[in-house]
Amino acid sequence: MTRPRVAVSMGDPLGIGPEIVARAAADERVRAVLVPIVFGARAALEPWAYAGELREVAPHLPGPGALALACVDAAARAVMAGEAEALCTAPLSKARVDAVHPGFVGHTEHLAALVDAHVAMMMAGPRLRVVLATNHLALSEVPRRLTRERIAFVVGLCHRELRGRFGIPAPRIAVCGLNPHAGEGGLFGDEDARIVAPAVHDARAQGIDVQGPLAADGLFPRAAAGAFDAVVALFHDQGLIPAKLLDFRSTVNVTLGLPWPRTSPDHGTADAIAGKGVADPEPMISALLLAARLVRS
Amino acid sequence: MTRPRVAVSMGDPLGIGPEIVARAAADERVRAVLVPIVFGARAALEPWAYAGELREVAPHLPGPGALALACVDAAARAVMAGEAEALCTAPLSKARVDAVHPGFVGHTEHLAALVDAHVAMMMAGPRLRVVLATNHLALSEVPRRLTRERIAFVVGLCHRELRGRFGIPAPRIAVCGLNPHAGEGGLFGDEDARIVAPAVHDARAQGIDVQGPLAADGLFPRAAAGAFDAVVALFHDQGLIPAKLLDFRSTVNVTLGLPWPRTSPDHGTADAIAGKGVADPEPMISALLLAARLVRS
Repeated sequence: MTRPRVAVSMGDPLGIGPEIVARAAADERVRAVLVPIVFGARAALEPWAYAGELREVAPHLPGPGALALACVDAAARAVMAGEAEALCTAPLSKARVDAVHPGFVGHTEHLAALVDAHVAMMMAGPRLRVVLATNHLALSEVPRRLTRERIAFVVGLCHRELRGRFGIPAPRIAVCGLNPHAGEGGLFGDEDARIVAPAVHDARAQGIDVQGPLAADGLFPRAAAGAFDAVVALFHDQGLIPAKLLDFRSTVNVTLGLPWPRTSPDHGTADAIAGKGVADPEPMISALLLAARLVRS
Repeated sequence: MTRPRVAVSMGDPLGIGPEIVARAAADERVRAVLVPIVFGARAALEPWAYAGELREVAPHLPGPGALALACVDAAARAVMAGEAEALCTAPLSKARVDAVHPGFVGHTEHLAALVDAHVAMMMAGPRLRVVLATNHLALSEVPRRLTRERIAFVVGLCHRELRGRFGIPAPRIAVCGLNPHAGEGGLFGDEDARIVAPAVHDARAQGIDVQGPLAADGLFPRAAAGAFDAVVALFHDQGLIPAKLLDFRSTVNVTLGLPWPRTSPDHGTADAIAGKGVADPEPMISALLLAARLVRS
């Protein structure tokens, strides 16, 4: 089998992106299973002695936010054009991209708009996979933005990708409750009975092995022990707190619903340590390896 | 030093309470450091060969919910009367107590009303202590019920109890953000800037070493690694998901703000395995041991 080509966006040049991209691309484990093609600026990569394939990106606007976003767009277009089989993105600064591209909230939403797809974010770690039904949203917006349709869609998407890309023939999925104790029979909010339970019912009617709503605090220890192949969390912190707490270095952000695999390390630009040569490339290595693994025929 | 006396409520007789109380009370580690005084029904404890001190509780209403609540009340009154130095409660069924005592949402709230105190719930584990600013509340209620005063109060309470009961001379406390990424500079909700940050400011003005609001998903791994002595979470799942995920068996529920220590195991009545002799007494043992440790002169 030929090694898949993975398009890699360099990330924000003021952050640790160029460093971890260069170090991860040189890692033996990475070179053994994939060919990275980096989309970035030679000047930013040169200090880290990057010696692999490079596509120079020159944005029409100056500044690190514009450059970081141009790298993502160029890398994504390369995958769409068939020049690579998967996309892996290094961290950018949402605030610096937002300054040139108002309304930018993250890679996931940006890529979804680029290919006009309904997507969901998964955090995939060795012991736990979590998929978010909502993501970058004020907490006060969550109860009114959650719908039966969205939750059922995310469960279905998770099921399809676990089968198609992760190679799990009969995925077992659990859905978190929104409220404490999944509403405790209506004592704490009605959304679990009114929205979440019907969504789970809809997904079960499609033949999916899914349970919920289950009290989130009791569910994650069970999932981490192997009771489920993925957990659908209903909002950002509900899913990301357990995902990062269990396996910070080897948990990878995966976008479900795109026509091709897209992964990224789940940390920020870490400006404070940028340029010092002390950044940990391990999360980027995990992201590259998973991108290659998700390329299935 | 004489061993402290710990008043223990037996819990719901249809659940695993009587079994774990009897087995924990007989444990060598427990007997070495405290004297349990169980408040319960002889008939419920007899199958588990409980041989320690017992105060028979006969509720004026029949049924397991009424009995479970009467045990809590009798045990709490014994502590108030000086017959014991701490309280440890076995699990009861909120639904079965609510049936005879409408509006009952949990031990913590019930005990706070009993002694007219402002309290907060802490989950104390070997690697992480989490205190909740709100608890049994629909998620949609959280943003509008959180106040600057409540958060500052909980930080202050946490600081006092860490010093006074936990023996930490200079506690380091962190406060979670409410929104994803603590609001990402206003992109996702304004409560972190409008409510949480001023509350942290107020607490710092009292001389407390406290930081926040910090993005919750990044904060918990740091706290678990030792960067903070306690984390203040702003709602139920934000705090209980990491607490239970890290150390399910040895994490103890502690009520802060009562005139005496009160602990409990943080699991439910587990009706499905009640009466079978297979319940794990370890969480109850952890709760008893911590109750004794929190009795300080």
